[in-house]
Amino acid sequence: MSQGQPRLHVQLAVSAGSALRNAFTREAVLEAADGHPGVLDGVSLGFSDTGPALEAALPGADILVLTGQAGLAGLALRAPRLRWLHHTSAGVEWLLRESLPPELLLTNASGTHSPKTAEFALLCALMLSNNMPALFTAQRAHRWDPRPSPTVAGRTALVLGLGGLGGAAAAALEAAGLTVIGVSRSGRPHPAVAESHPIAELPALLPRADILLITLPLTAETRNLIGARELDLMPRGSGVVNIGRGPLLDHDALAARLRDGRLGGAVLDALPDEPLPGDSPLWDVPNLIITPHCGLYDPTAYARRCLDGFFANLRRFKAGAPLQQLVDPARGY
Amino acid sequence: MSQGQPRLHVQLAVSAGSALRNAFTREAVLEAADGHPGVLDGVSLGFSDTGPALEAALPGADILVLTGQAGLAGLALRAPRLRWLHHTSAGVEWLLRESLPPELLLTNASGTHSPKTAEFALLCALMLSNNMPALFTAQRAHRWDPRPSPTVAGRTALVLGLGGLGGAAAAALEAAGLTVIGVSRSGRPHPAVAESHPIAELPALLPRADILLITLPLTAETRNLIGARELDLMPRGSGVVNIGRGPLLDHDALAARLRDGRLGGAVLDALPDEPLPGDSPLWDVPNLIITPHCGLYDPTAYARRCLDGFFANLRRFKAGAPLQQLVDPARGY
Repeated sequence: MSQGQPRLHVQLAVSAGSALRNAFTREAVLEAADGHPGVLDGVSLGFSDTGPALEAALPGADILVLTGQAGLAGLALRAPRLRWLHHTSAGVEWLLRESLPPELLLTNASGTHSPKTAEFALLCALMLSNNMPALFTAQRAHRWDPRPSPTVAGRTALVLGLGGLGGAAAAALEAAGLTVIGVSRSGRPHPAVAESHPIAELPALLPRADILLITLPLTAETRNLIGARELDLMPRGSGVVNIGRGPLLDHDALAARLRDGRLGGAVLDALPDEPLPGDSPLWDVPNLIITPHCGLYDPTAYARRCLDGFFANLRRFKAGAPLQQLVDPARGY
Repeated sequence: MSQGQPRLHVQLAVSAGSALRNAFTREAVLEAADGHPGVLDGVSLGFSDTGPALEAALPGADILVLTGQAGLAGLALRAPRLRWLHHTSAGVEWLLRESLPPELLLTNASGTHSPKTAEFALLCALMLSNNMPALFTAQRAHRWDPRPSPTVAGRTALVLGLGGLGGAAAAALEAAGLTVIGVSRSGRPHPAVAESHPIAELPALLPRADILLITLPLTAETRNLIGARELDLMPRGSGVVNIGRGPLLDHDALAARLRDGRLGGAVLDALPDEPLPGDSPLWDVPNLIITPHCGLYDPTAYARRCLDGFFANLRRFKAGAPLQQLVDPARGY
């Protein structure tokens, strides 16, 4: 970058309420940048919380890297130079409600979770296949109730969503010997699955699902996608996993089918409210395992993988090349 | 077999109290025999429970196939022709207390559990690595307490016992990317593990174990092998799995270390008493998962695999060849 060219200012803001707040430290950012030689030439970095310090930095910011949530109303006036907003999570539905300037580039951490997602999807499939939800319920009641089971190989998993999460999950389940049916918005072929279908075909596919694994983002089209009608199409004793977003699933319908045994078990990493209130009836639903939105997050690797993605994009941005991990506001993810 | 040769009588006895009672049916036995053409030439089969019908059949029995437990005192007098006893489980410690005739051949189902054991060992490692014991405890208390974790690859598992169970478990854990240290009576090299040691070296190995997986048979030497001293040598926050026998482990010592957080979690498929009484304090120990001795048993495959092993042995027996799955009463397994 020549001397006369203006510097590019990257502001990194971490919300005090974010579960990731201790991972995106100044030290972590600088250490990740070291892996991308020259990427900070002509770049200045600023670090702040999401309060007044961010507000003071916004007028000079070209790029904002945001960890956790922040109020972004009127961003065009508050940050007139801002051209790119990178969010360090995959879920951006809250961001898209903020009427962002239409020309603002928006990227997220899609794909960053992949190795842990692959492992957690396998863990959930094994827990369901080995009747762990029923065994926990029995343990809580001090009841010796053996529930032996065949191996998981040969069972069929329906993976709903084939983005970063779903693709990683599908590949892991295939490798463990499950038959995997992929379902996505487009229904386009995906390298991780032998079979893929558009969402419209869901009613014909659900009767084949021993395990339904929900990995979709939350959009107007996916909200309440899995309700009583869909759950009733699944085989008796089958299981549900949600690693997407809580509002994709009708939790009352799920709970009723877990209580009466139509469904064999469920694992929810995404909940209707997070944190789930202490008085939520979900905590005590039989044959239900709750993992409080921590299954996909690898605290030793996530921030580094995410920052590596950001710095690779920053090099593209400086070169005028197209960014990766771009969010399409019209699509919603 | 020539016409003049006496027939060989095989008596199959199933205890009404056995969890396997519905798997070893007459139909299952005959179907398995079909896979071993000619094996029943010159052989008569008898089917009974372990009560008076067995008693009536014992005087004519050359071979006894026993599912579940039965009183075997004075067997030399009750079954004077008996030359071979096959037990359709792996654990034979109760049988060896029965002062069996010293020349009686004794075989068990060692190795029959392997595919399910491999899967269950992986499930247990993933549950511990993903902090599932702590998450269940939090769910019981309606507490939103996220416990994110790195992937399991790279952790170290110490597999105690390298027989049928331990060998299958070790191979599965290695395949999942764990470093596996094998420990056996002999310490001989084992194909499933890069590193194997005799039991005497346990104190030097336990500090390396993120996960201790107990798979040993119960013998005079292994009873109470893992007590307070051994658990205190493990790293803080590490985990314990017992798929062997309950009395190998000091459960009071384990519970104390789960309560105060020195250990991060445990999964017990083998318990000190089975069924575990409803008033056992173990049910409520924090960060402890109880699977009621059902983790290794595949109801769709176990009996067939076991009977295949028996009929292969029956062919050897008729040919005067050495049997496989032989139990050494002096060794205890």
